[in-house]
Amino acid sequence: MKIIRVANKKELNELTGEMLIGSMLSKQTRYNLSITAGNTPKGVYEYLAPRIKRNSAFDHVHYYNFDEIPSTDPNFIGVTMRDLKKLYLDPAGIDSKRIHHLTSENFENHDHNLLLAGGLDAMLLGIGKDGHYCGNLPGTTNFADQTVKVEAKGALKDLIGRHFSDPLLVPDYWITMGPKSVMNARKLILIATGTEKADAIWHLVDGPVENKYPSSILKLHPDLTVIVDEEAAERINN
Amino acid sequence: MKIIRVANKKELNELTGEMLIGSMLSKQTRYNLSITAGNTPKGVYEYLAPRIKRNSAFDHVHYYNFDEIPSTDPNFIGVTMRDLKKLYLDPAGIDSKRIHHLTSENFENHDHNLLLAGGLDAMLLGIGKDGHYCGNLPGTTNFADQTVKVEAKGALKDLIGRHFSDPLLVPDYWITMGPKSVMNARKLILIATGTEKADAIWHLVDGPVENKYPSSILKLHPDLTVIVDEEAAERINN
Amino acid sequence: MKIIRVANKKELNELTGEMLIGSMLSKQTRYNLSITAGNTPKGVYEYLAPRIKRNSAFDHVHYYNFDEIPSTDPNFIGVTMRDLKKLYLDPAGIDSKRIHHLTSENFENHDHNLLLAGGLDAMLLGIGKDGHYCGNLPGTTNFADQTVKVEAKGALKDLIGRHFSDPLLVPDYWITMGPKSVMNARKLILIATGTEKADAIWHLVDGPVENKYPSSILKLHPDLTVIVDEEAAERINN
Amino acid sequence: MKIIRVANKKELNELTGEMLIGSMLSKQTRYNLSITAGNTPKGVYEYLAPRIKRNSAFDHVHYYNFDEIPSTDPNFIGVTMRDLKKLYLDPAGIDSKRIHHLTSENFENHDHNLLLAGGLDAMLLGIGKDGHYCGNLPGTTNFADQTVKVEAKGALKDLIGRHFSDPLLVPDYWITMGPKSVMNARKLILIATGTEKADAIWHLVDGPVENKYPSSILKLHPDLTVIVDEEAAERINN
Repeated sequence: MKIIRVANKKELNELTGEMLIGSMLSKQTRYNLSITAGNTPKGVYEYLAPRIKRNSAFDHVHYYNFDEIPSTDPNFIGVTMRDLKKLYLDPAGIDSKRIHHLTSENFENHDHNLLLAGGLDAMLLGIGKDGHYCGNLPGTTNFADQTVKVEAKGALKDLIGRHFSDPLLVPDYWITMGPKSVMNARKLILIATGTEKADAIWHLVDGPVENKYPSSILKLHPDLTVIVDEEAAERINN
Repeated sequence: MKIIRVANKKELNELTGEMLIGSMLSKQTRYNLSITAGNTPKGVYEYLAPRIKRNSAFDHVHYYNFDEIPSTDPNFIGVTMRDLKKLYLDPAGIDSKRIHHLTSENFENHDHNLLLAGGLDAMLLGIGKDGHYCGNLPGTTNFADQTVKVEAKGALKDLIGRHFSDPLLVPDYWITMGPKSVMNARKLILIATGTEKADAIWHLVDGPVENKYPSSILKLHPDLTVIVDEEAAERINN
Repeated sequence: MKIIRVANKKELNELTGEMLIGSMLSKQTRYNLSITAGNTPKGVYEYLAPRIKRNSAFDHVHYYNFDEIPSTDPNFIGVTMRDLKKLYLDPAGIDSKRIHHLTSENFENHDHNLLLAGGLDAMLLGIGKDGHYCGNLPGTTNFADQTVKVEAKGALKDLIGRHFSDPLLVPDYWITMGPKSVMNARKLILIATGTEKADAIWHLVDGPVENKYPSSILKLHPDLTVIVDEEAAERINN
Repeated sequence: MKIIRVANKKELNELTGEMLIGSMLSKQTRYNLSITAGNTPKGVYEYLAPRIKRNSAFDHVHYYNFDEIPSTDPNFIGVTMRDLKKLYLDPAGIDSKRIHHLTSENFENHDHNLLLAGGLDAMLLGIGKDGHYCGNLPGTTNFADQTVKVEAKGALKDLIGRHFSDPLLVPDYWITMGPKSVMNARKLILIATGTEKADAIWHLVDGPVENKYPSSILKLHPDLTVIVDEEAAERINN
């Protein structure tokens, strides 16, 4: 695990973007990347998108979402893919042939398909205040899980409900790469900013490995880089 | 994780030896290897030792033990290093300059020293009936531990006592790379044979990730190879 | 460049086999290998074939020939593929789906197709007394050539004629990966035995880089291993 | 070989900087980098230096010069190291312990020392109008040369004389990593801008491999990236 501290969000966006660009260009054959939606990476994608769009040197990069919240409306593409398109894939001009949508139809073959495609070269991850990453919320998946469907009832359904204006559209489940699938990627990059993430970063870096803090497992990956601003890093030592 | 099934011990010894030789020769600069003592690897070392000894092509390989049981007699080298010398290092003619002994004096710097030396390129691991690997016995280390000193009282002291003829020589502790240190190696190879290991292999491959089965964590390493005979593999599916 | 000296053919066969097995098992996703026909590798393939055949752990390996001498008889598969099948692919039980035949029909797309398939992970090469490797004979290709068709007239036609019992079947050309294509592989392993190869090995290892000794270029590859017996190594220093 | 075309110098500086930052951060253990002096990389170093200086994440990077023009004044550090310090090493705040100066005293051990240090992870190269890179000028080194001392008489002495205000200080030789040493690096990045480099880039990318165009050899490296603006790329096709 390598911890990289940056002074502010601008530095985090730049450094994460530079690290991704450098990693993409480190390979001349197909490069498979899975990226996160959410608020934290917004600035990273603003940095990346125009650079990726203007240069065909990045045309060997294939994109994967690592979780999806579908909808009872079969015509809705899904919360994660909708957000990824808006945040990055559309502004970066990514050809649909290089976008591989993880859905409730294909999730059972996802790990096998990734293996056939050469495996994930890297994942860009965020982290929640509760220590979740991808769709691995406390109490929903086990460390040994590969890509799975998670039942969303009660409080969990309320949680994903905030992504929908119409409550009737909220589904009873979501899809996510589980911890075992994520740990199988060759490189993990996790970004976090702000005091509200300081506890989660402590659990990730210094805390015990426990299912109730899903991201606590990530510290065991041999090529994990954690990029944090001073606020998110305020509880860790090294 | 890749599971490789072999028909018998002879095939396991050969395949493991071939895999190690090929991995050593995959690098032209310093290669850092940590290897297990115990009964399972005996045949592997019988295969390897003469091949390593006769060819200077392997002189870039440096060796590390990953655990050590010292003794109250300060002149005793330690159970693990004594066994490794007998099983492999002496018959393979390894120069003492390329043997890096993990001891109770240097264990606190072990992870840092490994990083400075370029990191471990590979580890060869065995597994106990109780799911232990290295000195990570159930209830002794946590998944987040790096290299640590483990207190050995009561039943644990009895357990390591079987390595000593004189009970007065049995120490109150042992040293081991913890799960976090092991998971930081670039490649893990784990070998097991016999029905008595079938439960441990099930926990390793298919079981939940739980501290009480220490090796259950290894399934999350992105480059783990498990080599097993039919007996050890009898409870797993893939 | 790493030079590995072995005592005799038996050691060369074993060590080369071990190196290939270890390299294949170093990857868990598709592994692309291009191998040589000819006399030198015979013993290597005798070592490898039964080991590959009996274990599904090698089912991720895809095979490529790197040159081909076709025939005026359109039903003849080609000299190289015929020999590779006899020497290795058939005894090793390789599924035809994992055999990618370089032919006079597809050679122009060969380099592009390799790139799409992830590139060559390794090539096993032999060397001729005249310093040729693959179909790169002195005077036939240039260092900057990718996969090409070589015209075979006069002495060159006589040379390939020895592969045919009926002179009417001898073609006017052959196909080969050129130096640039070969140098693009991630790992090169070259084997040679016997005094008759000592000059060629000198040119390869210590001689000047000149088109008239095609293999002299290989010394510039960052991951070349040369495995030689004492006779083949008698003119080199290191 | 991968050709990356950029619209202008600003894009070249950014993309090269991003590629280097990403490559440095791809490794968590020691990273060995050799970089070029000269005019072309000026903007790259202006991009890099403040980013490297402000973050300890880059403290595992060690720096090497790949050529040196000493002086008859033994107190003068050498033209290349003087320029690298001014252009990059000083503004980036690189600790002298991580700067490894290739000199006329240590050049004979340079290749061996690099091997012991883990080998070069990457080199950043420029190219001259005459096709030279590092100190490999037409007619001065051979493709098979490792790190060598080049005699500088007549026109060659005049050529290096332009680096000195006092003609009495001009030495009779220079030091350079030869083609074989350069090709041994794991990754090569070469940058060029402007119409005046268009011929050299044509020779590098599409031309024959000939000693009289030293950089023509670089096209045979399995991990070469060439970054060029439209002017420098105007004679190449792909």
